Amino acid sequence: MIAAKGYAAQKAGATLEAWDFERREVGPHDVQFDVLYCGVCHSDLHQVRNDWFEGIFPMIPGHEIVGRVVKVGAHVTKFKVGDLAATGCMVDSCHTCDNCKDGLEQYCDNGAVFTYNSKNQYTDGAPTYGGYSNTIVVKEEFVLHVSDKLPLAATAPLLCAGITTYSPLKHWKIGKGHKLAVLGLGGLGHMAVKFGVALGADVTVLSTSPKKEADAKKLGAHHFVVTTDAEQVAKAKGSFDFILDTVSAEHDFPLYLSLLRTNGVHICVGVPSTPSIIPPFAIIAGRKSLAGSSIGGIKETQEMLDFCAEHNIVSDIELIDIKDIETAYERMEKGDVRYRFVIDMATLK
Amino acid sequence: MIAAKGYAAQKAGATLEAWDFERREVGPHDVQFDVLYCGVCHSDLHQVRNDWFEGIFPMIPGHEIVGRVVKVGAHVTKFKVGDLAATGCMVDSCHTCDNCKDGLEQYCDNGAVFTYNSKNQYTDGAPTYGGYSNTIVVKEEFVLHVSDKLPLAATAPLLCAGITTYSPLKHWKIGKGHKLAVLGLGGLGHMAVKFGVALGADVTVLSTSPKKEADAKKLGAHHFVVTTDAEQVAKAKGSFDFILDTVSAEHDFPLYLSLLRTNGVHICVGVPSTPSIIPPFAIIAGRKSLAGSSIGGIKETQEMLDFCAEHNIVSDIELIDIKDIETAYERMEKGDVRYRFVIDMATLK
Repeated sequence: MIAAKGYAAQKAGATLEAWDFERREVGPHDVQFDVLYCGVCHSDLHQVRNDWFEGIFPMIPGHEIVGRVVKVGAHVTKFKVGDLAATGCMVDSCHTCDNCKDGLEQYCDNGAVFTYNSKNQYTDGAPTYGGYSNTIVVKEEFVLHVSDKLPLAATAPLLCAGITTYSPLKHWKIGKGHKLAVLGLGGLGHMAVKFGVALGADVTVLSTSPKKEADAKKLGAHHFVVTTDAEQVAKAKGSFDFILDTVSAEHDFPLYLSLLRTNGVHICVGVPSTPSIIPPFAIIAGRKSLAGSSIGGIKETQEMLDFCAEHNIVSDIELIDIKDIETAYERMEKGDVRYRFVIDMATLK
Repeated sequence: MIAAKGYAAQKAGATLEAWDFERREVGPHDVQFDVLYCGVCHSDLHQVRNDWFEGIFPMIPGHEIVGRVVKVGAHVTKFKVGDLAATGCMVDSCHTCDNCKDGLEQYCDNGAVFTYNSKNQYTDGAPTYGGYSNTIVVKEEFVLHVSDKLPLAATAPLLCAGITTYSPLKHWKIGKGHKLAVLGLGGLGHMAVKFGVALGADVTVLSTSPKKEADAKKLGAHHFVVTTDAEQVAKAKGSFDFILDTVSAEHDFPLYLSLLRTNGVHICVGVPSTPSIIPPFAIIAGRKSLAGSSIGGIKETQEMLDFCAEHNIVSDIELIDIKDIETAYERMEKGDVRYRFVIDMATLK
């Protein structure tokens, strides 16, 4: 086994503290890379607190991981020592179901293995530990290439916030000629704006906070609608082809659905802890859809990373010391981050 | 004005009784036809009772109307006296918005005029009266041709139950190679089965009642799943491409969404009076959609009627005397009808 260091919650709701643990030895198909940067996702906090389901503890969060390869297994062909490498939300899947064959490992019929808070049912059943750590061992198929032309720390959030917003934009073929509304301007929302603009859509940010307008425009958004302003809402009614909804708090679906035009699609990528309340006429009138989307497959994640290198897209980040992770969580809960915290793993001694 | 007879509710929740009223004179673009048969839709009952919104009274329900032309206006070109004619849920729309131009009058941005419980804002603002009556005057564009090769009484329900299920099947291009589940086997559901089969889909009826299996198979369904049987439900998990949901009572969305495969679409055409409760993961896991669809445009309604003539498709009906309408409503509420009541308008003296 490989001795490793990380920051873990020893039980549900506990504060994160330094913890020594072990990674598996590098197998013939494995890549080991030292973690240089790891993004901080809102779902890290949800899972540490058991908001969605009973977690596996001790838990080392983190699924926006970039670093440099230090060892590769005998059969590894796509990576060599010294390469940049990245891993997102998944580290394994069954590889045999229709979804896996279609490159949709995130919807694996037999269950994807997530980067943390998961057990690898396809190997030894051991719990997985995430990227708030100094090193990680991952099956080659789940390791991605990142360009050395982009600022590395700012690429980390692409592995979750990036792919989560890129994938639905591509699936629904959103681009030129489409009016796209992005709901919520946080870690996911700011990436959705950048991708929407890069893909040629006419992008509007919907927000309850008028203060965010300048930032939205700076990120490239063409328009801004304050959703608490009745006049602005009335003007926006029936105008969007798509809403990409990144909000993970309870929200007013009938209001947002009313902003869609005929055949419009409201795509949820945020995960509130309460169910969505949809009055039947809100979707029947205008043949509208409420859809969901979860991260993206491995092939598509690589495509997204390549797209980012080509279009010079990264996340706007605030680099933090791992010892400040609890303060970062508090600020993230208040929405006080522009737009993603990234841990500088050099601070983990 | 034209003297007319009908059956009306004088106020919300009142029983229907004979009522003498007037239709407008036949204008240059109007068709007048005597009503021979009118289907009884669950929404008639909802509207008589103000279940959805405040209605306009006296109210003459009925929007599944077939009959024979008795008079045409000077500019009418598509109908002549003696022709069969039909009208569904709409009698006018703005004709100028994008939806109208796209043949989607049911989603008219300025509001379609419905066949009853509506006011014609594009002409004189007068209330509209439905098909539980001896004669009707309708703008030519909203009058449809029905084939004389089909049993006429059984074509009446095509004008609402038919188009409401046909339109989403066509919009989502459902057919060969698709596994389609039809939820609810009533007036809409039995038409959905017939259309699904005719379009080449593999059709399963989902029902809480094992007693409906024989009927479902007789209608052409290939499979039947009792949704209260845990074993049958477990076997059906993740198996359908589409669910066409015709149920207008409260129901368990997470259960049905779990039966969809990746990218599956749950299409609601029934209108419950309570909102739908959708847990976020029920659509995010598997990139599923909850969609709505409302009747169909005029061009598509004609296409559906022609399709029915070609494939020999009509509704299974029970012909009633108009004096038995209240008994029919009581039986409809209990689901005791196979599958649509149709009023024989010769019984209206």
